[in-house]
Amino acid sequence: MGVVANRMPVPGIGGAAVPAEPDALSTLVRLVGPDLAACNRTIVARMDSPVALIPQLAAHIVAAGGKRLRPLLTLAAARMCGYAGPRHVHLAACVEFIHTATLLHDDVVDESLLRRGLSSANAVFGNKASVLVGDFLFARAFQLMVEDGSLKVLGILSHAAATIAEGEVLQLVTQNDLSTSEQRYLDVVRGKTAALFAAACQVGAVVADRPGPEEAALAEYGTSLGMAFQLVDDALDYAADQVTLGKTVGDDFREGKITLPVLAAYQAGDAEAREFWVRTIEASSQTEADLDRAMLLVQRSGAIRTTLARAARFAMAAKDALAVFPDSPIRRALADVADYTVSRVS
Amino acid sequence: MGVVANRMPVPGIGGAAVPAEPDALSTLVRLVGPDLAACNRTIVARMDSPVALIPQLAAHIVAAGGKRLRPLLTLAAARMCGYAGPRHVHLAACVEFIHTATLLHDDVVDESLLRRGLSSANAVFGNKASVLVGDFLFARAFQLMVEDGSLKVLGILSHAAATIAEGEVLQLVTQNDLSTSEQRYLDVVRGKTAALFAAACQVGAVVADRPGPEEAALAEYGTSLGMAFQLVDDALDYAADQVTLGKTVGDDFREGKITLPVLAAYQAGDAEAREFWVRTIEASSQTEADLDRAMLLVQRSGAIRTTLARAARFAMAAKDALAVFPDSPIRRALADVADYTVSRVS
Repeated sequence: MGVVANRMPVPGIGGAAVPAEPDALSTLVRLVGPDLAACNRTIVARMDSPVALIPQLAAHIVAAGGKRLRPLLTLAAARMCGYAGPRHVHLAACVEFIHTATLLHDDVVDESLLRRGLSSANAVFGNKASVLVGDFLFARAFQLMVEDGSLKVLGILSHAAATIAEGEVLQLVTQNDLSTSEQRYLDVVRGKTAALFAAACQVGAVVADRPGPEEAALAEYGTSLGMAFQLVDDALDYAADQVTLGKTVGDDFREGKITLPVLAAYQAGDAEAREFWVRTIEASSQTEADLDRAMLLVQRSGAIRTTLARAARFAMAAKDALAVFPDSPIRRALADVADYTVSRVS
Repeated sequence: MGVVANRMPVPGIGGAAVPAEPDALSTLVRLVGPDLAACNRTIVARMDSPVALIPQLAAHIVAAGGKRLRPLLTLAAARMCGYAGPRHVHLAACVEFIHTATLLHDDVVDESLLRRGLSSANAVFGNKASVLVGDFLFARAFQLMVEDGSLKVLGILSHAAATIAEGEVLQLVTQNDLSTSEQRYLDVVRGKTAALFAAACQVGAVVADRPGPEEAALAEYGTSLGMAFQLVDDALDYAADQVTLGKTVGDDFREGKITLPVLAAYQAGDAEAREFWVRTIEASSQTEADLDRAMLLVQRSGAIRTTLARAARFAMAAKDALAVFPDSPIRRALADVADYTVSRVS
């Protein structure tokens, strides 16, 4: 893993990437601590089933220590809107179930061997089980929403689920295709990642009964945060230290996934570089040494910088969206999370 | 395909398998014809997406000419309950979407190469696409339900979806395990097949605003019909002519799936037969000639007869459940469908 740039400075474009407190997420966790603990209890209680393999497999991925970023957004959004009841806890669990189902189905799809530093559920339990337990968690999420009883929430999250699937299929269609436009790549990201971030935030406004500007602002915050998050993730796949990131560097490269770092490096490349990308990404013909070369080409071409600059603009848009809310510790924490998202590489 | 018994007489146990009109399904189709046409239009309209691969792949499986049995049940149940509005058409489409999603995910799981006589979506488009388009249809089903606006319907179908996944996972757990009890096998069938039949019927009572005895009766009819349907399907996997059935005979055998024909043949078998089943099902060690031998052993042991007798009892229970409704052409057609289900082998 020769070419690693996990100390790369974050570009300070538009003021979006003012170095954030390194513990922006921890601050958010602290602010909604009891809610998050209750949410975790709900997750464990409701992923149970008489069919023992279901909680076993679900625990494998849930216990893998995800950051619970999406449910955190639901909890924080609801609190920022002044909500004082218990509903957001259950809906945050729904959001995490939908996310976990997506991860399980993504494991099947991508055959990635390392997720969050642990072997993937897929590698341990097999494709079949991953698909079916994903289906169970997805269905269970809707059962929880039905118990909650809000058709509006059900509408938001079923729409998000359909949009996620569309984004994932679009990603499949663009795979190995270097002629994919940047716009199309952004459409993929909007679907596969930003849709659930947006829904997670929006639901917080709904339970707090804040339709209108607040709900729209939270949806906008979530969308922009999700875009920033995924762009940084895509940059890290060509730049990160595997230990730091806790995921396999080079996954995207090996799968021929079309991400902004590749598109930018391809477009900026000379004839030789272009030939390299055509062979490795379009023709899927890769050797052992190719990942190091890919990382070098991405670095040299400025593609990482381009990608992070894009991410920084989205992070700024996320923060801007929060302007509709009065200043509060949670609002500040949510703004810091946007900065933190793009500063993960620093 | 030497050992084929597609002219096997149906056992007349308990009067359940009185030879039914060969066109019991056609009669039902005729009775709810305009509803079914509207449902098909809804299916085509709502499986659309800007991501072209989604309708393409969905059309592949939807156009494969499934019998639309499950949506037919919703339509017929609603009409039998005197419903005169348009909601059942949309909910029947939801039921078909959930069923189609399950088929797509089952294709991934089982790698069956022939479904309904056409190559499976999986074989044509790949595992990834099948998983993701299944996810899309599942989400789209919930969007349609949200548009319909009944939390009760959402509760019934989200519960069914979770139960289906549990049944499928339980099937995975029992795979290759000849010590599986008949009860456990029936639990698998109840989950993976009967749950959606039951929900499809129950929803018909709900839109017609017939809670209580009628709703319970329709749920019971659907459960029993689904059990009968799956048991016959499992028998056919060891007995049917591939052309007649439109599915690959021997799929279950090759996958080491534990079904009643295998359990009954194993239990009734002599030492040599048991050794055969242990090798082929538990150790998954199969040669070309083994399927013919498996079909012969299943036939000779009386396992097909045992399975069909079970199916016939479920079909009778399904018909009995209809007693709560006054006589009508639709009630008669639904009763005939139960008989037809177990007479598919004749």
